[in-house]
Amino acid sequence: MNVALTPTLLPHIDVQPTPPEALVALQARFGAQLSTAWAVREQHGRDESAFTHVPPPAAVVFAESTQDVADAVRIAAQWRVPVIPFGVGSSLEGQLLAVRGGISLDVSRMNQVLAVHADDLTATVQPGVTRKQLNEAIKHLGLFFPIDPGADASIGGMTATRASGTNAVRYGTMRDNVLALEVVTARGDVIRTGTRARKSSAGYDLTRLFVGSEGTLGIFTAITVRLYPLPEAVSAAVCSFPSVDAAVRTTMAIIQMGVPIARCELLDARTVRAVNAHSKLGLREAPMLLMEFHGSPASVREQAETVQALAHEHGGQDFGWATTPEERTRLWTARHNAYFAAVQSRPGCRCITTDACVPISQLAEQVGAAVAEADAAGLPYFLVGHVGDGNFHMGYLIDPDDDAERARAEALNAALVQRAIDCGGTCTGEHGVGLHKMAFLHAEVGDGALALMRAIKAALDPLGILNPGKVLA
Amino acid sequence: MNVALTPTLLPHIDVQPTPPEALVALQARFGAQLSTAWAVREQHGRDESAFTHVPPPAAVVFAESTQDVADAVRIAAQWRVPVIPFGVGSSLEGQLLAVRGGISLDVSRMNQVLAVHADDLTATVQPGVTRKQLNEAIKHLGLFFPIDPGADASIGGMTATRASGTNAVRYGTMRDNVLALEVVTARGDVIRTGTRARKSSAGYDLTRLFVGSEGTLGIFTAITVRLYPLPEAVSAAVCSFPSVDAAVRTTMAIIQMGVPIARCELLDARTVRAVNAHSKLGLREAPMLLMEFHGSPASVREQAETVQALAHEHGGQDFGWATTPEERTRLWTARHNAYFAAVQSRPGCRCITTDACVPISQLAEQVGAAVAEADAAGLPYFLVGHVGDGNFHMGYLIDPDDDAERARAEALNAALVQRAIDCGGTCTGEHGVGLHKMAFLHAEVGDGALALMRAIKAALDPLGILNPGKVLA
Repeated sequence: MNVALTPTLLPHIDVQPTPPEALVALQARFGAQLSTAWAVREQHGRDESAFTHVPPPAAVVFAESTQDVADAVRIAAQWRVPVIPFGVGSSLEGQLLAVRGGISLDVSRMNQVLAVHADDLTATVQPGVTRKQLNEAIKHLGLFFPIDPGADASIGGMTATRASGTNAVRYGTMRDNVLALEVVTARGDVIRTGTRARKSSAGYDLTRLFVGSEGTLGIFTAITVRLYPLPEAVSAAVCSFPSVDAAVRTTMAIIQMGVPIARCELLDARTVRAVNAHSKLGLREAPMLLMEFHGSPASVREQAETVQALAHEHGGQDFGWATTPEERTRLWTARHNAYFAAVQSRPGCRCITTDACVPISQLAEQVGAAVAEADAAGLPYFLVGHVGDGNFHMGYLIDPDDDAERARAEALNAALVQRAIDCGGTCTGEHGVGLHKMAFLHAEVGDGALALMRAIKAALDPLGILNPGKVLA
Repeated sequence: MNVALTPTLLPHIDVQPTPPEALVALQARFGAQLSTAWAVREQHGRDESAFTHVPPPAAVVFAESTQDVADAVRIAAQWRVPVIPFGVGSSLEGQLLAVRGGISLDVSRMNQVLAVHADDLTATVQPGVTRKQLNEAIKHLGLFFPIDPGADASIGGMTATRASGTNAVRYGTMRDNVLALEVVTARGDVIRTGTRARKSSAGYDLTRLFVGSEGTLGIFTAITVRLYPLPEAVSAAVCSFPSVDAAVRTTMAIIQMGVPIARCELLDARTVRAVNAHSKLGLREAPMLLMEFHGSPASVREQAETVQALAHEHGGQDFGWATTPEERTRLWTARHNAYFAAVQSRPGCRCITTDACVPISQLAEQVGAAVAEADAAGLPYFLVGHVGDGNFHMGYLIDPDDDAERARAEALNAALVQRAIDCGGTCTGEHGVGLHKMAFLHAEVGDGALALMRAIKAALDPLGILNPGKVLA
């Protein structure tokens, strides 16, 4: 039933003016931590989504403590002013745009690693700590935090979108790696969820309810995450394939055999070309898998041999190894820059990114259909994927002022999502719903589950001040 | 702040009579699927908890389909009659007791494996399917479902309590392994949560909210779980230790080194003794770790060597291997029967089981304190633990009619829980809250989080008919 979904071309904007009394109260409480400067507001009123022309928030509060967050929310509640939490601004689906007005609550100054319990493999951080900062802070302990969405996102933002990225196939997503939270509720109360124990059956799983709630149910002020021992051995490999299909089918075989691969990334030929140009690499400009193996030296060798045999069966060639940290870093930096490399390949463009995630058995067919449709539509695009999880991103590169191009890209996205839902998948593997996928979410979960989500939102945020106009239409 | 918590000696019973019209309506709809026979009601009014003398439910409905569940709930809602879902009756904390009256909704006849997607490593089952039944159904595909709480529990019940057990240290708990649900809501609507994709950021994580909700937010009618390829090699080992402390410290070292051990179970000397007597084994009657390793033959060998070295450092001896399936089955059956073996060691007793789960660095101290207190109290007890997760169970064997013994055991439990909470742990690793731990839950999560749980309960079950009187006091 490949009925085209209604794509979101422009978000619904309904800005109520912020009561001057609210700004006065915020000013009185926050002084120099409050900014109404245009440049500051403008920088907080956008993200990496393709949406433009949304008015910025009325003001930006730079929170420096849990108490700051609680007080800001309490003042906002008093005047019914929307509050939009802001980390580093790397979200992709319009999560940060002030479509209902209100204030941006910037938590980037809350950037302390509060505690590292090396023996328990946990750390507690403030929400503005970025993933790279956390990894720097724990490296000397022989530990790492694996969740890696590419951008150096804040842990708060990654928690809010249930982020994942390249390591998720082995280590799970933020869902699996957040153990506990400190949260400011819509009333400005500070509550705690979860513990530092590895598992619990103590009541409703509030931690998991907040993870992925995109700022609409509460604002995180501390996050406890799982850490992992740095693997004894790490090896990265690239392998070129005659077709995207062959690369995807190799991935399916790897997963179905239970190989504990740590990363398994797909790049199509045009992405490899953009990456070569951007990062001065000489990779064969063909569909490619970029993989990483973690474990003991023997286990890494064994995994690599298995994968090499599977790749060979599917026509893989040029199997190349990167075993030194420098070579690996160069490869993964190139992968992380793929998005920017592709965007730079069309000056002035914005990128509309798809984010479907499908059962692994459906991946080759789903990716194939997406590529065929994009080729037929004649829009420039790139394709990357965390294919080990069944998650892939088509990036349509559009002229943001060309409505026809935007409509074409969104129609491709909608058709791709409908196919993903029809085969048992989801409209978003890791970017969240934001403004962009509210219609998709409805199609995916149905009236019943959406009504439950609305009931939860109404129960936890009865005034509707937490990031309104997002996730739930 | 080791303040003794208020232990639950007897549940608060407040049975309202079931309106005769409700029973008439249920009788009209369900005919022979409804029973009001005393023996049937009595069997559905208890579980493996130590609570006795609670009146049974007014009737038992044997649901055979999702529609049956929806209709039963709709009739119950019409007459404000409590509904208590029932799988196999193996819950441990009073989850099934009809403390507010109402009906038991037995889903054990909903025992079909609805779909197995071997390529995607997922299966969808009805709630009455037991874990052993599922494993039988997928064995020929080279797959298994790892969650193993010991009892042959229903997948519905395991989902409701967020169960885990012996394999969780490697494969996670029901939280990690339930992908999607079909749920009958408190209004009798049928909704779906989640997809068959490995990950998703699509809106609020309703799946995780329902997992562990103990029948208080909705009734599961279909559950999609993750499966795993049967490991190429499996090896089980037993190792005796000079003390519980040495066994626990070995476990801490294993986890902190990141060894991907599949099972790591502690039995104290008296449990080994009971197991020897019950299962006709000749294990050395000393504290013991019972372990299992999964992987390729080389990886299993490597894990075992690492663990053997760590055990040796802590005084481990008699390292014994079980590599044939028969030997392994004999050992694990003995472990699974430890509970019954221990209970049989005191004829007529009931068992009050603790379920704290603590950060792994705290485990030796927490277990040590629990053992010292129990020894000082002079109550018969046994000790087992999924120690790789920091989860351990003291089983106090009490005469259910001796109020003083019950009070002594509950005081030990409360003190143990308070210590677990104080060190960053949880009152329940896997058994859930039920009737038994409502005060503990409150102490653990605090007023703020408890208020949020109550708000969610009120939003999703405004009439309060779903398993009332449980989880939230």
